[in-house]
Amino acid sequence: MTAAITLTTDFGAAGPFVAMMKAVLQRYAPQAPLIDLTHQVAPCDPGEAGFWIARSWAWFPAGSVHVAVVDPGVGTARAILAAAHGGHLFLAPDNGILPMIVPAGTPLHALAADWPGRRDWPQASRSFHGRDIFAPLAAALWSASARPADIGLEVRHPVPATVPAARRQGDAVTGRVVALDNWGNLITNIDAGLIAGLPSPRISLDHRDVRLFDTYGDAPPGALLALVNSLGVVEIAWREGNAAALLGMGRGATVTVRAGT
Amino acid sequence: MTAAITLTTDFGAAGPFVAMMKAVLQRYAPQAPLIDLTHQVAPCDPGEAGFWIARSWAWFPAGSVHVAVVDPGVGTARAILAAAHGGHLFLAPDNGILPMIVPAGTPLHALAADWPGRRDWPQASRSFHGRDIFAPLAAALWSASARPADIGLEVRHPVPATVPAARRQGDAVTGRVVALDNWGNLITNIDAGLIAGLPSPRISLDHRDVRLFDTYGDAPPGALLALVNSLGVVEIAWREGNAAALLGMGRGATVTVRAGT
Amino acid sequence: MTAAITLTTDFGAAGPFVAMMKAVLQRYAPQAPLIDLTHQVAPCDPGEAGFWIARSWAWFPAGSVHVAVVDPGVGTARAILAAAHGGHLFLAPDNGILPMIVPAGTPLHALAADWPGRRDWPQASRSFHGRDIFAPLAAALWSASARPADIGLEVRHPVPATVPAARRQGDAVTGRVVALDNWGNLITNIDAGLIAGLPSPRISLDHRDVRLFDTYGDAPPGALLALVNSLGVVEIAWREGNAAALLGMGRGATVTVRAGT
Repeated sequence: MTAAITLTTDFGAAGPFVAMMKAVLQRYAPQAPLIDLTHQVAPCDPGEAGFWIARSWAWFPAGSVHVAVVDPGVGTARAILAAAHGGHLFLAPDNGILPMIVPAGTPLHALAADWPGRRDWPQASRSFHGRDIFAPLAAALWSASARPADIGLEVRHPVPATVPAARRQGDAVTGRVVALDNWGNLITNIDAGLIAGLPSPRISLDHRDVRLFDTYGDAPPGALLALVNSLGVVEIAWREGNAAALLGMGRGATVTVRAGT
Repeated sequence: MTAAITLTTDFGAAGPFVAMMKAVLQRYAPQAPLIDLTHQVAPCDPGEAGFWIARSWAWFPAGSVHVAVVDPGVGTARAILAAAHGGHLFLAPDNGILPMIVPAGTPLHALAADWPGRRDWPQASRSFHGRDIFAPLAAALWSASARPADIGLEVRHPVPATVPAARRQGDAVTGRVVALDNWGNLITNIDAGLIAGLPSPRISLDHRDVRLFDTYGDAPPGALLALVNSLGVVEIAWREGNAAALLGMGRGATVTVRAGT
Repeated sequence: MTAAITLTTDFGAAGPFVAMMKAVLQRYAPQAPLIDLTHQVAPCDPGEAGFWIARSWAWFPAGSVHVAVVDPGVGTARAILAAAHGGHLFLAPDNGILPMIVPAGTPLHALAADWPGRRDWPQASRSFHGRDIFAPLAAALWSASARPADIGLEVRHPVPATVPAARRQGDAVTGRVVALDNWGNLITNIDAGLIAGLPSPRISLDHRDVRLFDTYGDAPPGALLALVNSLGVVEIAWREGNAAALLGMGRGATVTVRAGT
């Protein structure tokens, strides 16, 4: 089972930007399987990128490198961070992505301007580090020619996650919608473990109460439903169509889970 | 020429859902080329998925496995069906997809809950069988470690196709728009063979008559045109732009072909 | 480092059209890495396709074949052209794409109807030469079983580029917006070299003056900015969001760069 390099960006499908990253990755790591995680992160939203990676990296083989390029600060003084966790490697700008993926206390190393491994790379542009820095660095991490600790000093105070973690207070857990999927399901950051102890949990958002089911088809016709989805978090869905459009809600909306009666 | 695994879903481009399927496919069938057929099937429309696969599978190498995950019934009692046809293998939920692809009478086998091949798979979620069941099963079919007849009993009465087949009555053939492409062309399920005997065929939809041409550029400027497209079916197009937008029509619209005078 | 085959089309993500091209490419060139450059070229816009390829081909390994299928004239008398330049190979319909990529004077050869290499290919459809001609021809070029000069006569007067090249007159350079990216940045065809000699360059479009910065994050909050982007051309951006939407501008808009004072 070959470790992969996964790519998560807000580049969308327009233009050759992902392809240029892949050209560089193939130059420096020709054997690495390249897997598009998603390129449809909402523009400049590190929270969505961090969420998707946090909830899917464990499906890939050990040794995989997960690269996130959602990088509005490209070319400024913002650092580029690498970390190792759970046998995988992660690479992202210092804008809150990695703290959503690796546990607090995991060493995050910032690429040094004078790291010797950079000598073979072409001169970097100021506006596309995905191609010019993230891709060759991901290749070096994948081929184990560099480890995160090799590339530069540890960063003690990285930019924190832009999305506050869901939390439990007494009998209520409060979280947020962090992403939408293609069907308009509202995906929250409320982990199944957080609500595990709540009897008959009821979900509420926007003054509506939603019942928890095991899967989409278990809900009665016409009803909104909630479920613990395949990513292990609470999701609000509508069997008949697009819940986000029906409710006029999207990323950032508050969702609460309470013990039922 | 290596057999491939093709993927047809309604997952769109948001989130890591296709990527997680690929992670599992690579784990169980690391040598299989993975080809995205399309992930833009209209949400929950098995008819569109079945149509695209039916019209394109023959282009792939023998032994290829074609997986369709358009699956609003995921996690309910709906079956998961596999079939062999024409040297290829097909895998889809029991919601009308396979009857659009394989001829009537082709044995369709339903994955048994106690099929021994499942023992090595992780516990399946209730809401993402694409990752948890379709992917490892496709890998097993691709590597020939299982044949459709091995995985469970034959299903005698599968859910029929959701789109009625086009049919000829006297000098008229009636069908439907089953899909749109990126240019807004209206693609019908009327096979070239059905209209082969009609002299000077004229296409009508929405009280308009459309002439049949050999290719787009043969039509006079400004005119709607019909052609037998590269998938072997009747298509309505507009040289100047998006026919679907011009006509305000989409999937489900009725199209008739009659002998001309 | 293995030469690749890159694909640039206006097929979008709907339907199995790209996948069918890949099936044919894998049949005839099973070892070729296939890279999607982009499939989101604006429908029937050869200028956008030519621009993206011109600005990205050099990132790929020598020997790569770059295929553009933006082809509203498919099945008519329009030629299919191949060219070699800079150790790479290019393949496109004769509709202005190649003149945007290769220098004037580069030999462009038109595929002959009776080229012997075609004998092994299936009968071509009239409406999808991407699958039926471009794909097998790209495979032949990639595997070096054919060179552009082998496939047919040189075309002395190809269809010229649909987008006029940017040009300098005195102290002003005038160009156009040729493409948008996923963030709504307006990407012009004004090469960095054209404005290199202008002191304190100021960019103007739509009666607005825009200052040139090194990267996005250097601009003051709220301001439009221009930069020489990672493709080596002038781009207009807005840190806070989508410049194209803000300005109500898109492809074709005129952009001027003048010496500042």
